Amino acid sequence: MAAPTPARAEDAHTIRALERLARRRLSPAAYDYFRSGADAERTLLRNERAFRRFALHYRVLVDVAEPDLSIEVFGARLASPIGVAPTAYHKLADPDGERATARAAERAGSLFIVSTLATTSLEEVAAASAGPKWFQLYVHKDRGFTRALVERAEAAGYGALVLTVDTPLLGKRLRDVHNRFALPEPLVMANLVDAPGVKDASGSALQAYVASRHDASLTWRDVDWLASLTKLPIVPKGIVRADDARLAVEHGARGVLVSNHGGRQLDGAPATIDALGAVAEAVGDRLVVMMDGGVRWGSDVLVALARGARLVFLGRPILWGLAAFGEAGALRVLDLLREDLRRAMALAGCPRLDSLPPDLVHA
Amino acid sequence: MAAPTPARAEDAHTIRALERLARRRLSPAAYDYFRSGADAERTLLRNERAFRRFALHYRVLVDVAEPDLSIEVFGARLASPIGVAPTAYHKLADPDGERATARAAERAGSLFIVSTLATTSLEEVAAASAGPKWFQLYVHKDRGFTRALVERAEAAGYGALVLTVDTPLLGKRLRDVHNRFALPEPLVMANLVDAPGVKDASGSALQAYVASRHDASLTWRDVDWLASLTKLPIVPKGIVRADDARLAVEHGARGVLVSNHGGRQLDGAPATIDALGAVAEAVGDRLVVMMDGGVRWGSDVLVALARGARLVFLGRPILWGLAAFGEAGALRVLDLLREDLRRAMALAGCPRLDSLPPDLVHA
Amino acid sequence: MAAPTPARAEDAHTIRALERLARRRLSPAAYDYFRSGADAERTLLRNERAFRRFALHYRVLVDVAEPDLSIEVFGARLASPIGVAPTAYHKLADPDGERATARAAERAGSLFIVSTLATTSLEEVAAASAGPKWFQLYVHKDRGFTRALVERAEAAGYGALVLTVDTPLLGKRLRDVHNRFALPEPLVMANLVDAPGVKDASGSALQAYVASRHDASLTWRDVDWLASLTKLPIVPKGIVRADDARLAVEHGARGVLVSNHGGRQLDGAPATIDALGAVAEAVGDRLVVMMDGGVRWGSDVLVALARGARLVFLGRPILWGLAAFGEAGALRVLDLLREDLRRAMALAGCPRLDSLPPDLVHA
Amino acid sequence: MAAPTPARAEDAHTIRALERLARRRLSPAAYDYFRSGADAERTLLRNERAFRRFALHYRVLVDVAEPDLSIEVFGARLASPIGVAPTAYHKLADPDGERATARAAERAGSLFIVSTLATTSLEEVAAASAGPKWFQLYVHKDRGFTRALVERAEAAGYGALVLTVDTPLLGKRLRDVHNRFALPEPLVMANLVDAPGVKDASGSALQAYVASRHDASLTWRDVDWLASLTKLPIVPKGIVRADDARLAVEHGARGVLVSNHGGRQLDGAPATIDALGAVAEAVGDRLVVMMDGGVRWGSDVLVALARGARLVFLGRPILWGLAAFGEAGALRVLDLLREDLRRAMALAGCPRLDSLPPDLVHA
Repeated sequence: MAAPTPARAEDAHTIRALERLARRRLSPAAYDYFRSGADAERTLLRNERAFRRFALHYRVLVDVAEPDLSIEVFGARLASPIGVAPTAYHKLADPDGERATARAAERAGSLFIVSTLATTSLEEVAAASAGPKWFQLYVHKDRGFTRALVERAEAAGYGALVLTVDTPLLGKRLRDVHNRFALPEPLVMANLVDAPGVKDASGSALQAYVASRHDASLTWRDVDWLASLTKLPIVPKGIVRADDARLAVEHGARGVLVSNHGGRQLDGAPATIDALGAVAEAVGDRLVVMMDGGVRWGSDVLVALARGARLVFLGRPILWGLAAFGEAGALRVLDLLREDLRRAMALAGCPRLDSLPPDLVHA
Repeated sequence: MAAPTPARAEDAHTIRALERLARRRLSPAAYDYFRSGADAERTLLRNERAFRRFALHYRVLVDVAEPDLSIEVFGARLASPIGVAPTAYHKLADPDGERATARAAERAGSLFIVSTLATTSLEEVAAASAGPKWFQLYVHKDRGFTRALVERAEAAGYGALVLTVDTPLLGKRLRDVHNRFALPEPLVMANLVDAPGVKDASGSALQAYVASRHDASLTWRDVDWLASLTKLPIVPKGIVRADDARLAVEHGARGVLVSNHGGRQLDGAPATIDALGAVAEAVGDRLVVMMDGGVRWGSDVLVALARGARLVFLGRPILWGLAAFGEAGALRVLDLLREDLRRAMALAGCPRLDSLPPDLVHA
Repeated sequence: MAAPTPARAEDAHTIRALERLARRRLSPAAYDYFRSGADAERTLLRNERAFRRFALHYRVLVDVAEPDLSIEVFGARLASPIGVAPTAYHKLADPDGERATARAAERAGSLFIVSTLATTSLEEVAAASAGPKWFQLYVHKDRGFTRALVERAEAAGYGALVLTVDTPLLGKRLRDVHNRFALPEPLVMANLVDAPGVKDASGSALQAYVASRHDASLTWRDVDWLASLTKLPIVPKGIVRADDARLAVEHGARGVLVSNHGGRQLDGAPATIDALGAVAEAVGDRLVVMMDGGVRWGSDVLVALARGARLVFLGRPILWGLAAFGEAGALRVLDLLREDLRRAMALAGCPRLDSLPPDLVHA
Repeated sequence: MAAPTPARAEDAHTIRALERLARRRLSPAAYDYFRSGADAERTLLRNERAFRRFALHYRVLVDVAEPDLSIEVFGARLASPIGVAPTAYHKLADPDGERATARAAERAGSLFIVSTLATTSLEEVAAASAGPKWFQLYVHKDRGFTRALVERAEAAGYGALVLTVDTPLLGKRLRDVHNRFALPEPLVMANLVDAPGVKDASGSALQAYVASRHDASLTWRDVDWLASLTKLPIVPKGIVRADDARLAVEHGARGVLVSNHGGRQLDGAPATIDALGAVAEAVGDRLVVMMDGGVRWGSDVLVALARGARLVFLGRPILWGLAAFGEAGALRVLDLLREDLRRAMALAGCPRLDSLPPDLVHA
């Protein structure tokens, strides 16, 4: 009963089908790097499973002839609330790497959050497409280097800074430890090639890079400092608590991305869909609430939107699409989820994202 | 320990045994079409599984020598509260198709809801048996065609109109997509052969038919319009919310069929047995409350009745019976469930349907 | 890791080991008859599984050097609160049948409830041992025959009448239907050989016997009538509701046996351990509360006692013991569970049955 | 996807990997003895599984550059809150036995609770390392012998007495019964070789030893007596109830070790992580609250600390490490869990053990 292997991106109708194909095309170590979570992978599993507990109490006899999925965030008009989460090393999945992803996102009308750990420099990614992009940032011990990254992102036209706050040090991903995973030559962490202390910026430096360069003493004061550097909206990513979301408001953040880093950092963290509700309630309209983690179906997106997210991001699915069919595969993922969301909205009697009934979802 | 394959309809003692046999007799694509649900099939699975959570707190030492399963609905006397849900394409399962089903329902004393998407015209189905029948209706964009269907159903003696309200567009059933499922020649959607825009009324047109002909802008005003056309009771089908059930009362409906379309439309919808209670509480005696979805055992029927349903409908089980043994198989399903319900009522100390103790069922 | 096959009864340390051996020694049809439950066997499964939800919050540093398991019920002194539930057809399991069981129960100091459907007459069972015995009774349509059974039980020295109230008709056990199960010649339902309408009293007559002879119109008035016939304590068996237990008090019952007939009657009935608490709370000390269903370990017995049972009965386990090793096997089951209960009581800090802390068990 | 077999202790990154290796190196009977729990092993399973229900709601942007895992208990400074639970027979796992464990604990800066049932005398264990050690004590019927043990422990420099209170008699471990498990010659229970009534102190005497020598009539008065013998802090081990923990306070205990003896005593006992919260709430700061049972990951330790434990002990994991790599393996277990805890604390935004936010953990 398994679905046939898709021969073209358009033949793939589920994320699972793309993951199966990606698994065949990636080296085992690369597949493991993308797939795995920290420690016992409890949180990785939770992220997907938690969605199964929710039921969509759909409405009927609402005019859904023309569902509107568009949304405006920080001045950018997006065709759908489904964006590309920041993930590292796209060239592991496809030779065109982040440029392919950028073109796919633009064609889908989706937002792309480019990772600090991209294998393509942020300037090259910016040049690859005209679509809206944000830059994901780690604050480095070397504040000068951090400032330079911010200035580069601003200069390159990125629309916001997504500050990862769940990585004072790197989670322990057992597959990578066992595989002694390293970014294979000649790939490099392109944004860091000039960074002091990152000699070759190769993947083997990842653990060392985080340990030596990330600042585990980072606090909300550093967010204030960051805000003093730039006019770009700042969006802390990796928050799962209501009190932390309120702190984000106090420290001038414009959004918050509820995330547990795809289950790759603290194993035992709650599923993001379970953490989302309290965060959304705590900050109301004061922040643009976003989430990633475990989203694999259009109805998952609808659940997240009903629980308070305005934007929902895909991490691994984009990598599976990229590995399976390059740019066309990444585009397929975005198109697929957007069309599945459009259908789910119509079937749920929700033609617009701003009028989801509060009781649409029951846990 | 698996049950032996039944050689005759009377040898089948469970729906499962009939499904196993049906699977062997149907083409893989036809089996998939009947069996599958939308997307991840979460709702399909939920419908059946949810029944396992309920416990029947039976009473003892009640006189149950003669359980009475009969019920009167909209003037029709039924031998049992178990009816045939509307399902498409009965000729896929048996050459006699809906006529066989009609005869089986009549012999069982059961109500048969005939689908718009029957492979036999509503007039031919009406002529095939004298048993009570209702007509399931989709409101088409072409209101003239819709009106014609209503007039035909009235003229043919159907006792109520069951208006499907959960299908502004078609759910995505992955097996059908993979199988490129089409109604095989020479079968046709017999009620639509004269419909403008339905060229050949063959199954390949199903997705296209729904997309092009169904009206996704349908609202409660259209229910008012429909009510203005006919004196037949109108029963919206596909409701899972209490507020929608109250709207049904306001718009003149006489009944409500709690359903999620067998898990074939919005994946993530609640199990119908979970949605039933709130609907029944909301509308009390103002509507005849009915349900379908996941009913496979006599005790499931009793649970649904105790949760507020007055009629319970079987969808796939009838198709398995039909595919396994034709009319005799469909009859077997109805006889089996009715006798199992009769036994369950006796064992639960409930000789009549109108005196179920409110606390008979605990979740 | 499976336990080795026990060569002697003393080598069996779990009920499971005895069941495995019994399965090999019994004909498939006999094994199925003993093992199976009604319909989907949901209640059968529930009975055992429900125990896993309870946690024993044991006390420490209580003097448990000499746990006392003895109990007095209706004037009989029992060595333990673990008795033999009424089950049919012991000669299917062992040639000595109910006589072997009676001797085993006597040796273990346990109460034996003899079934109306025994393959040995109640007088012969009474003569086989001096241990305490009660008689399980079905009220037959033929009240004269019922009265005769009561008089015979009294005359033979039975200490109470256990009136089965959950069987107005027979549950549908699919394995028996598929096996066309019949009591093999020359076995007979020995208490019924003189009964009018029971021609040969063979097992093939079971369904017919119940259908033709049991009185589905039985009510609490018949309990009153029964009480008028005898001075023996009457214990309705098969009650799962608090209101029915209160009715038992009102109609002069002296005890109540919370049971769902081992999951063989109404499928969907609650696990007995789940039903027990409300019954015990409802009747307090006015009835001797008992239970059977799903008890397989000494700690299960302790859970049941803590939830309000004063006596706990074993059904299938006795049959597995009997089939595996005859009288020695039945005795082994009783000895094993009693010793396991003794250990559980000591480890739980409960040296006496009448001083179980109310919060010993948490669901 | 299974992890490769570690060739050196440092290559093992999970407890599971060490258990797999230990299983290969141990005799089946020894492996069974260490692994198994009582009866149906429900509690054994619960201990590990219960951790999966908890979610760590981590904080972000807290300075975690230097997490402090050190803790002082009863005057001893420990490098981490992770200690070695008392377990019997270390020479079954490694020829150096408890001495190897003692050296490993010292190197890790961890506390070691030495078992009465050690295969090395308490004096030899004390001499093997300078690290902090407590002595686990059973109160024997022979109070003179008990007193002698206490005096020996004091003389040898043990820092506290851990009084096991959950073993008035031995739990029934089916694997040991089937294996007729006995401590193989020439191993002995070294602390008992001079004990009257323990002839050869070999393992075959374990059941007999406990039955004949342990005092099942032990009560809190004996704790008073024990306290009168010694100035050492007394820590009852095996408590799962709040009222018992309060009794511990009243009887002069200085700590309490929440434990169910690794699921080896009363099967059906609650998971220790589930019992911990109520105990910690009941005794507040009046006792040092500790726990063991089911801890396999650094995040499990953090959950236990957040639920109120100040020290967390590892039982079986130490034995797996010892069996796999001797002293280096036991050390690896302690190092691994400590580093995993350090990482979990950093990722949870908890740089110190005394400032865990009360809502860090949700069940």
